Amino acid sequence: MNQATTIFTIQKLLLSLLIFLLFWSCQQNTTDEGAEQTSSEPSGQPNFVIIFADDLGYGDLGVYGHPTIKTPHLDQMAREGQKWTNFYVGASVCTPSRAALLTGRLPVRNGMSSNKSRVLFPNSLHGLPEGEITLAEQLKKAGYATAAIGKWHLGHREQYLPTNNGFDLYFGIPYSNDMDRVTDKNYWEFADSIPTDYYNVPLMRNTEIIERPADQNTITKRYTEEAIGFIKEHKEEPFFVYLAHNLPHIPLFASEEFLGKSERGLYGDVVEEIDHGVGQILATLKEQGLAENTIVVFTSDNGPWLSFKTHGGSAGLLRAGKGTTWEGGMREPCIFWAPDRIKPAVITGLGTTMDLFTTFSTMAGVAIPDDRVMDGVDLTATLFHKEPSPREAVLYYRGPELYAVRLGDYKAHYFTQGEYGMFGGKEAHATPVLYNLSVDPSEQYDVAEQHPEIIEQINAYVKEHRSNLVVGEDQLADRE
Amino acid sequence: MNQATTIFTIQKLLLSLLIFLLFWSCQQNTTDEGAEQTSSEPSGQPNFVIIFADDLGYGDLGVYGHPTIKTPHLDQMAREGQKWTNFYVGASVCTPSRAALLTGRLPVRNGMSSNKSRVLFPNSLHGLPEGEITLAEQLKKAGYATAAIGKWHLGHREQYLPTNNGFDLYFGIPYSNDMDRVTDKNYWEFADSIPTDYYNVPLMRNTEIIERPADQNTITKRYTEEAIGFIKEHKEEPFFVYLAHNLPHIPLFASEEFLGKSERGLYGDVVEEIDHGVGQILATLKEQGLAENTIVVFTSDNGPWLSFKTHGGSAGLLRAGKGTTWEGGMREPCIFWAPDRIKPAVITGLGTTMDLFTTFSTMAGVAIPDDRVMDGVDLTATLFHKEPSPREAVLYYRGPELYAVRLGDYKAHYFTQGEYGMFGGKEAHATPVLYNLSVDPSEQYDVAEQHPEIIEQINAYVKEHRSNLVVGEDQLADRE
Repeated sequence: MNQATTIFTIQKLLLSLLIFLLFWSCQQNTTDEGAEQTSSEPSGQPNFVIIFADDLGYGDLGVYGHPTIKTPHLDQMAREGQKWTNFYVGASVCTPSRAALLTGRLPVRNGMSSNKSRVLFPNSLHGLPEGEITLAEQLKKAGYATAAIGKWHLGHREQYLPTNNGFDLYFGIPYSNDMDRVTDKNYWEFADSIPTDYYNVPLMRNTEIIERPADQNTITKRYTEEAIGFIKEHKEEPFFVYLAHNLPHIPLFASEEFLGKSERGLYGDVVEEIDHGVGQILATLKEQGLAENTIVVFTSDNGPWLSFKTHGGSAGLLRAGKGTTWEGGMREPCIFWAPDRIKPAVITGLGTTMDLFTTFSTMAGVAIPDDRVMDGVDLTATLFHKEPSPREAVLYYRGPELYAVRLGDYKAHYFTQGEYGMFGGKEAHATPVLYNLSVDPSEQYDVAEQHPEIIEQINAYVKEHRSNLVVGEDQLADRE
Repeated sequence: MNQATTIFTIQKLLLSLLIFLLFWSCQQNTTDEGAEQTSSEPSGQPNFVIIFADDLGYGDLGVYGHPTIKTPHLDQMAREGQKWTNFYVGASVCTPSRAALLTGRLPVRNGMSSNKSRVLFPNSLHGLPEGEITLAEQLKKAGYATAAIGKWHLGHREQYLPTNNGFDLYFGIPYSNDMDRVTDKNYWEFADSIPTDYYNVPLMRNTEIIERPADQNTITKRYTEEAIGFIKEHKEEPFFVYLAHNLPHIPLFASEEFLGKSERGLYGDVVEEIDHGVGQILATLKEQGLAENTIVVFTSDNGPWLSFKTHGGSAGLLRAGKGTTWEGGMREPCIFWAPDRIKPAVITGLGTTMDLFTTFSTMAGVAIPDDRVMDGVDLTATLFHKEPSPREAVLYYRGPELYAVRLGDYKAHYFTQGEYGMFGGKEAHATPVLYNLSVDPSEQYDVAEQHPEIIEQINAYVKEHRSNLVVGEDQLADRE
């Protein structure tokens, strides 16, 4: 090798090193957290994951202000995505709230609310009517793989189960985790350490009971694992996972890893285990390269069950809880996430769980049913472009009765009533009680006298709403 | 130039390019958001900026759960720094709370609390006793430039003003913005748009009145500007800025840029303007290369003044507000920030404003006074290394009387009483009312019966506390 060749070799090496360094530098710039992808429009059909907690209060997550429940994964999800602060459910108890989410319709329309029974029980005869279209059935039209994991509570007889409602897979319990109780003891005699056989709730796979009583100590962890397994298995096709944790509804259980770990006691242990599961699911989506194309939403079915004291959650600054049409009963934490697609923001516009049907159907390219009244609006432009939410109103039903209506900032209560399972009679208001929820989120200062024009607008809205309302035949009342 | 020299020149150029690229790459790695600096230990004397709001509630910031007040700068400050969720003030009203922060001592020790007058008024004769050492005096010993900007409220006669208490500069109002009232109208007759001359509060520079009445519409903005000016002017020496906004204490004012902009109404406008100012200060510190070496802390003097309804704030999930020894009166949002030095975290350990004296003195290398009882602890290890807070207890005084004590998770109320300025008599509890604040932050479920041993521990703590307590001569009672 002569001198010239040696020098040339050195030059080549230096150039290679230069090129490597340039590439490496560029890569450093594009792997910053939260910026893995660069596209901002959906490319084809996105996947959907709905994570639905049970009886979680508005104030129970770190990012929604809880001082001692630590939810680092949900906090990060909110930072990377959209934290909605005026997001509502369709009813303040389990069965109708779940029906609203999955059908995109008010429970009063399809008989999933009743003034004889608030929810379905193990001896109930019916469930979600066959004619209803679930979000899973809707997405099936576009070829989605679909899974319902967790609590169902829309009918436990075979024809009502998830696998007969558009879901390829079902793994979970068919009704609440406090049903099928087999002890006479007062809840507080054993609340902090419940033998699993005190509740005879079955765990099902598809239409079969695979475990009874379900081992609730490990149930949250198993739901998360099932969801992760389903995601990995179906990563080559569009998928929809409806992961409906049956906790933190009482009785409370946590796996060994979380038991006794939270500063908030058993309730906190349970929420922190759910948070951990959310983190695992988001990490799986990132690892599998699915984060960009998967819309994840986290919310809960209704507010905290306050009569269970420290075993119930907190509605934060909102009034009352589960079972009521006060804000604490129906406004929930709600976080949307899809890195680089859903624009990070705090969204104060209105949204409801019924909008998920409309929004996800639109994103998947499936037509919204036009043979029935739908109650959802399409939130896509808010999620992808931070445009104002198109939703203008929220209807607060208790059973089949309209108790209150929010129109923009203002909420008029036609009826008020205390909590589910607590004393306090129904009170009718000849002049509705009126609150400006933007200024007075805790519903403390009645402004009806100052704003008769708002009450008129809300009355007109109610009249319009009722003009096309056909009350569905009660599906909850009949029991064995 | 022969061939060998040419090749040598090319090699030198390539090497230079390589070295440049290497440096550039490294710099790219260290300029990611929140990671501008690499040192994690203080290098010499850090600067300190305390931003202190007035009557802001625990629930009034986005990052502490408010649904409609938007505080993007404080939210980001919390993400980049530490959000403390169990941080307390020394008293639930202005004067004693400010005395506690600046002296690191309970107001009961230095006469800054009284059972004759809750705070100082424009006709009060006294103020902070001369023998007290303020944090500014303390930092002066280490050569700091010091500024008090905003509300003082520790005595308005000349000898009590900031410039006689260790501050090089004073720019602000000497007492609350609702004092010197010159109208007989009911607050609500004009609350939403107050003529500036309805309050004859003076604005002072050092010991001179420079504007009377102070134009409160622009006061928040001017405080921020003054703070930024001081920081820029003193960037070559260690500095301490005590920026005590006199809002959102009523009457509420916001500058034109913010008026009518918040969804939360005037109260929200005010908080959002303060948030904007925080953003400007943090941006200034970054621009000036001071972020690494400046500890910024944001908190407030006491809880929300609930009797002012929508013009008062929200304590979120905490009970009651200003003037009380319930959590809502004395627990505050608290965010510490110094990128790369203060480790990002949610801290649930205990802290108080009195700890700032001890912590900042320690960081500045100034000995803690040993001729008096001090009430602060050093939070440095928690801030820099996320170690558990060394604080084990919080004392809740109302005037010179000890109403409640928190020891670890538990708080015992010896007395309870309704809000400042509202009805509700003082109630003594022979057996203290006991709450586990970690599990029951809203103080709903008395567990005294289940935990007599905790009450014994707290009683013993109180006994120990009282053993060295000398009640200071009342400085608030005497008025013209």
